[in-house]
Amino acid sequence: MSIEATIDRYCEAWSNPEPAARAAALAEVWAEGGRYTDPRADARGAEALLDHIAGVLAQRPGARVVRTSVVQQHHGFVRFAWQVIETDGTRLPEGLDIATVGDDGLITQIIGFFGTLPSEVPATG
Amino acid sequence: MSIEATIDRYCEAWSNPEPAARAAALAEVWAEGGRYTDPRADARGAEALLDHIAGVLAQRPGARVVRTSVVQQHHGFVRFAWQVIETDGTRLPEGLDIATVGDDGLITQIIGFFGTLPSEVPATG
Repeated sequence: MSIEATIDRYCEAWSNPEPAARAAALAEVWAEGGRYTDPRADARGAEALLDHIAGVLAQRPGARVVRTSVVQQHHGFVRFAWQVIETDGTRLPEGLDIATVGDDGLITQIIGFFGTLPSEVPATG
Repeated sequence: MSIEATIDRYCEAWSNPEPAARAAALAEVWAEGGRYTDPRADARGAEALLDHIAGVLAQRPGARVVRTSVVQQHHGFVRFAWQVIETDGTRLPEGLDIATVGDDGLITQIIGFFGTLPSEVPATG
């Protein structure tokens, strides 16, 4: 599976309204014990991640997560942008995920960030 | 040390023209055996990273790396943007670093990406 297909299957695991379909999509791409974190979550293993996704979808029924950037990778590290699209077509602010992918192509870690990264010129010194 | 100060010391280790000053800055913030990767480099440990930095600076004498965003963090994972400023003031395209920081505040890993992440709407299916 290409890295793009892997990431898109992962996004499907956040998007399909059927829990069994989400689990099937995640099973294709998620390594055993893989860790998912974002500012509000820290889930280890597919089951914990699927529980988290179910909770998020319960708050936004019918919402989908779609990839909105190319997939860049080096040394098994991947970055891509994504967006939540609600049922009425509303798009939430773009997020960024950094994935770690093993030699077998399975995702061992996702580090997620929400929204854009605000600019700042730090004080010198 | 605040996370902002940690990242700015790390940037100083990319910027000071004196090798000993770069090593001193890095020693304050880099964990033993910490790994640095970007699309062109994979360095483990402070010595390997300092060698890599020396090579980069040899190609761009006097260039500095400055943080250009706020520092966001969750669960020990950090993101920030940075930019190379050459001696004539030219700013190269912004990069993104994802750092992992231990409970002791030292950086155990940097995953770096160059430039902006191009948008793409993937094919559905």
